[in-house]
Amino acid sequence: MNLEMIRSHPVATAVDATVLANALEALAECSQACTTCADACLAEDMVSELRACIGLNLACADVCAATARVLTRQVGRDTAVVTAQVAACVAACSACGSECERHADMHEHCRVCAESCRRCEQACTDLLTALG
Amino acid sequence: MNLEMIRSHPVATAVDATVLANALEALAECSQACTTCADACLAEDMVSELRACIGLNLACADVCAATARVLTRQVGRDTAVVTAQVAACVAACSACGSECERHADMHEHCRVCAESCRRCEQACTDLLTALG
Amino acid sequence: MNLEMIRSHPVATAVDATVLANALEALAECSQACTTCADACLAEDMVSELRACIGLNLACADVCAATARVLTRQVGRDTAVVTAQVAACVAACSACGSECERHADMHEHCRVCAESCRRCEQACTDLLTALG
Amino acid sequence: MNLEMIRSHPVATAVDATVLANALEALAECSQACTTCADACLAEDMVSELRACIGLNLACADVCAATARVLTRQVGRDTAVVTAQVAACVAACSACGSECERHADMHEHCRVCAESCRRCEQACTDLLTALG
Repeated sequence: MNLEMIRSHPVATAVDATVLANALEALAECSQACTTCADACLAEDMVSELRACIGLNLACADVCAATARVLTRQVGRDTAVVTAQVAACVAACSACGSECERHADMHEHCRVCAESCRRCEQACTDLLTALG
Repeated sequence: MNLEMIRSHPVATAVDATVLANALEALAECSQACTTCADACLAEDMVSELRACIGLNLACADVCAATARVLTRQVGRDTAVVTAQVAACVAACSACGSECERHADMHEHCRVCAESCRRCEQACTDLLTALG
Repeated sequence: MNLEMIRSHPVATAVDATVLANALEALAECSQACTTCADACLAEDMVSELRACIGLNLACADVCAATARVLTRQVGRDTAVVTAQVAACVAACSACGSECERHADMHEHCRVCAESCRRCEQACTDLLTALG
Repeated sequence: MNLEMIRSHPVATAVDATVLANALEALAECSQACTTCADACLAEDMVSELRACIGLNLACADVCAATARVLTRQVGRDTAVVTAQVAACVAACSACGSECERHADMHEHCRVCAESCRRCEQACTDLLTALG
């Protein structure tokens, strides 16, 4: 659906529409996975050992959500803003992915969330390359 | 992916997991569609006639995003909060869907966005029924 | 500053500008207090007893932030949407305030956050009355 | 209130508490000002000349809101994530401030919003310096 919406937009995107649509999908998935993982970690018996994971999950969810919105808007698009926000998102996905990977063997939600973070990190890295 | 995450959560959901996963997917799609539609309307030549559509798109995007987060969290879940927030989302999707439908013949982004709003309105209505 | 911004807006607000500005200030304060309280609870030794508080804090922060945005927008304003979202915010502030009050004697952040929730609940209730 | 909440938090902040509280206040104010300014611009007769301003206002509002949340969380705090997100916020406030300044003589909401963006840009720059 993202691609359909992007193509009906009067303004051309700065990067290839499929690269942008791919990033938007990864961002939405990662934001949702991180929100769920934070809540699932909070419900675990060993919550006191999952504090850093919860904190990073919540940060990554917020950064992904804001990045998706910044990337969606073509009107008033500012390259410096877009590039800096996507770079912040790469940092958030990388940090959260690494933390979730540490618990991936023990918690299925951390395993799935880590994969989601890594996909999003890659999609944002590809986008930065495409932005030049 | 939502279903996989929900099933790995230590706390059982208040409603059937597939009903919840369906609502979360519809909410993410609608929030993204509304953000894109607002920006596409803003770029149209006839922007002055699309003001109400832009305003409702932005409101619906924010309400859907908040509703998805409230629904995702099982820890500290409060039925009154969940029910009231989902009801607010039904109102937002209904208002935005109706406004987008008025421009659906002229703007493809409004047509796609209206469909997304209607799907989300239905998913949230189903969820309210399931919540009882 | 909110009042200055509201008065420079070309569209008249649905309610008295000072009632609206008061609500917007309470919503921003409550959203920030809840985000801080969630993180402070997460850092406490007794985190396992504060899970519900963290979950409600996070929900209340999201609902307050979305409500502030809905209330800020006068273009495309829809009474049903505004009323339902403010009602959801009253429910969130009430639930979070009650939970924080249970820990107010033990945790200063819960005490301050509870007060912030109650102020926001009242400001939103006043707004609902003003909306009629 | 921010300072009171920060001081009741079990974890010490990475930077001086007053620098952090100052940044959080500037971020909340700027996010609110940008949301109002976007809506006020949308209501102006000359909306077609204010498109870029609306787009940048919406982006800046989202980036400021996410940055405030990232800065608020001390649990799982990651310097690379915080620094990159604050840098993205400096870029957003700078771009939005410059655009609003172009309309400051004509629209009071743009004048007030520009000042809010500049204050937030400075507060985030000070924070980056404090972070080292």
